[in-house]
Amino acid sequence: MSRSVSLSQTAEILKNNDKFLILTHAHPDGDTLGSGFGLCSALRKMGKKANVICSDEIPHKFEYLTVEGNEDFQIETIISVDVADENLLGSLKENYADKVLLSIDHHGTNTGFAENLYLEGDSAAACECIFNVIKELGVEITPFIATCLYTGIATDTGCFKFSNTTPRTHMYAAELMSLGADYDEINRVMFEVKTKSRLEMERRVLNDIEYLCDGRCAIVTVTQKMIKETGCDSSDMDGIASLSRSIDGVQIGVTVREKSDGRWKISMRTFEPYDAALLCSNFGGGGHKRAAGCEFGCGLEEVKSQIKNLLIKTLELKV
Amino acid sequence: MSRSVSLSQTAEILKNNDKFLILTHAHPDGDTLGSGFGLCSALRKMGKKANVICSDEIPHKFEYLTVEGNEDFQIETIISVDVADENLLGSLKENYADKVLLSIDHHGTNTGFAENLYLEGDSAAACECIFNVIKELGVEITPFIATCLYTGIATDTGCFKFSNTTPRTHMYAAELMSLGADYDEINRVMFEVKTKSRLEMERRVLNDIEYLCDGRCAIVTVTQKMIKETGCDSSDMDGIASLSRSIDGVQIGVTVREKSDGRWKISMRTFEPYDAALLCSNFGGGGHKRAAGCEFGCGLEEVKSQIKNLLIKTLELKV
Repeated sequence: MSRSVSLSQTAEILKNNDKFLILTHAHPDGDTLGSGFGLCSALRKMGKKANVICSDEIPHKFEYLTVEGNEDFQIETIISVDVADENLLGSLKENYADKVLLSIDHHGTNTGFAENLYLEGDSAAACECIFNVIKELGVEITPFIATCLYTGIATDTGCFKFSNTTPRTHMYAAELMSLGADYDEINRVMFEVKTKSRLEMERRVLNDIEYLCDGRCAIVTVTQKMIKETGCDSSDMDGIASLSRSIDGVQIGVTVREKSDGRWKISMRTFEPYDAALLCSNFGGGGHKRAAGCEFGCGLEEVKSQIKNLLIKTLELKV
Repeated sequence: MSRSVSLSQTAEILKNNDKFLILTHAHPDGDTLGSGFGLCSALRKMGKKANVICSDEIPHKFEYLTVEGNEDFQIETIISVDVADENLLGSLKENYADKVLLSIDHHGTNTGFAENLYLEGDSAAACECIFNVIKELGVEITPFIATCLYTGIATDTGCFKFSNTTPRTHMYAAELMSLGADYDEINRVMFEVKTKSRLEMERRVLNDIEYLCDGRCAIVTVTQKMIKETGCDSSDMDGIASLSRSIDGVQIGVTVREKSDGRWKISMRTFEPYDAALLCSNFGGGGHKRAAGCEFGCGLEEVKSQIKNLLIKTLELKV
C-alpha cells in the first residue's frame, strides 16, 4: 500500500526530485492528459526536466495539450496522474507500475500501487488536485497550464453537468478562465462539435431504438458492424451508451454492445424502485443499485429475448 | 427612453413599492422564469405582495419554479425581468407595456420601454442581475431562490458551455450551489433528459441531413409535418437548428425550417472566411458575419436548389 501524503509533502517530493516521467492512463481522456501536460509544464517552469507518456495514441481533439513536446533526458522519477489502478496503465504497466514514486489522483478506489499517494477523493477531476499541487509549488499558472487544467475539469464533469461537480469545481473554473484558459474553444470542441461518424452512429442507434412496456424501458444496440461502418473511434462513442437512460419516462435503460471478441456487454441503468444489480444478477452480472452490467456469449436475438423477458416480468410486477 | 438606474437605486425602487406584478417574456425560458420566481420569492420575504405572469404556458419542465403559487391582491407596481423589448411580452404587451416601472435585464439591446432600467449588459443571464439585486436588498437567499437563480444561469449558458459564460458566472454558480440550489436535478432535467418526441425529431433530421462540397456544408430540414408527427413542442426544438453548424468540418451550416404560415426560414452559420450576412443578402436577408438568415415563399425543392447553387458557387471559389 502507498504512503498517504499531504499537499505539502507532495510538493516536497516534486521539489526534491527531477527528470520526471508522468504516466497517464490508457484510453486517455481530457482529465488524465490535462493533468499530465499541465503538471509537466509547471515542473519545467521550476527548471526541471519532465515528459508525459501514455500507452495509447492521444485522440486528435486533445492535440493542443501536447504542443510543448517531449524532451530528451534520462528518466529518474516516475509519477502518475489520474491513474486509479496499475492495470489502467495499459502497456506501460510492465515497465513502470512498480516504480511509481508518487500517484496524484481523485479516485477513492485508488489501489495504492505507488510508493506515495496524494488523493483528493472529493475532487471532481484529477486536474483539481493538480491545480492545488501547482499552487502549493508556487509556480505561476500560465495560460497554457490553465488551458490544460480547465480541459480536465470541464471534460470530467460533462461541462459542470454531472453530479460530481462541486462549488469548488466552479470556483476553480472561474480562476482558470481568469488565468487565460482557452475555455471557449475547449467547450466548442469538447461539447459542441460532433464528427460525421458520430452523427451517423446516432442516426443508426435512433433508427433501431426499442421501447418496451409503454416506453418505461428502452434498449439501444451497438454492434461491431455499426462501429466499423460509421468509422467511430472511442472518443466518438462517448455518451452513446448513456442514451437509453436519458429518455423521458424511461425507468430502465439498457445498452447492448458487441465487444471486439463477439460477446455482448449489457449496461443497465435504473431509476427507483428498480435495482440494476439485482436484475443483472439474473445473468451472472452485478454492480450498483442504479448502474450494473452483465455479459452474454450467445447471439444477439437470444440476448435481447432474454433481457426483454426479464424486463417485462419486472415492470409488470411493479406498476 | 428609460432612466438608467444603479443597483442601489433598483433596490430602493423595490423597497419603496409594493403589490408587484413581475412580467416575464413570451415563449418563456429558464432565465426569465428563474428571474421572475426568484425575485417574487425574495419580495415576499420582505413582507411584500408579488406575483409572476407570462403570456404563454409555462413548459412542464419548469413547473418546479412555480411551487410558491400566486396570491390574490390589487396590483400596484409592474416590473419586467429578462425582457429586452416590449414586443417580447406577447399578449401582455397591450395591458402592461406602457406601465412598467422597472425593467431588470442583461440584454445590451434593451429598447428602454420601461420607466427605469437596471441593465447588466455583461451578465450571462438575467438571473445574475437578480442575484445582485437580491443581495443588495439584503434578503436571505433560500434554497428555493437559489434553485430559481441557478436554473436561469445554467440554461442561458448551456450549462456553462456558451461563450457568454464568464468567471463571475462560475462564481455565482458556486455560491448558489452552496446556498442549496437543487443543481443535480436541474442539470439532469435541462441537459440530460430528452423526450421521445425530441429523439424522434433527431432521428428524422439525421436521416435527411444533406452534405455538399465534401462535407464542408450541411443542410438540415425541419418541416411542419415533422413537428406535428413527432409531437415536438418549442422546448423540444431547442438546439435542433444549431445541429448543422456543430458538425466537424462543416464551414457553412444551413437549417431550412418551415414556419406555421408555410414560408421557409433559412438560418445560416458560417466559419471563416465565409460571410453569412453577405450570402443571405443574395436572397434579401441579412444578419451578422457568422450568423444570418433569410426567407423564401416558394416550395421546398426550389428553396433548396437556390441555396445549394449559391453554396456550391461560394465553396468552389474559396477552397
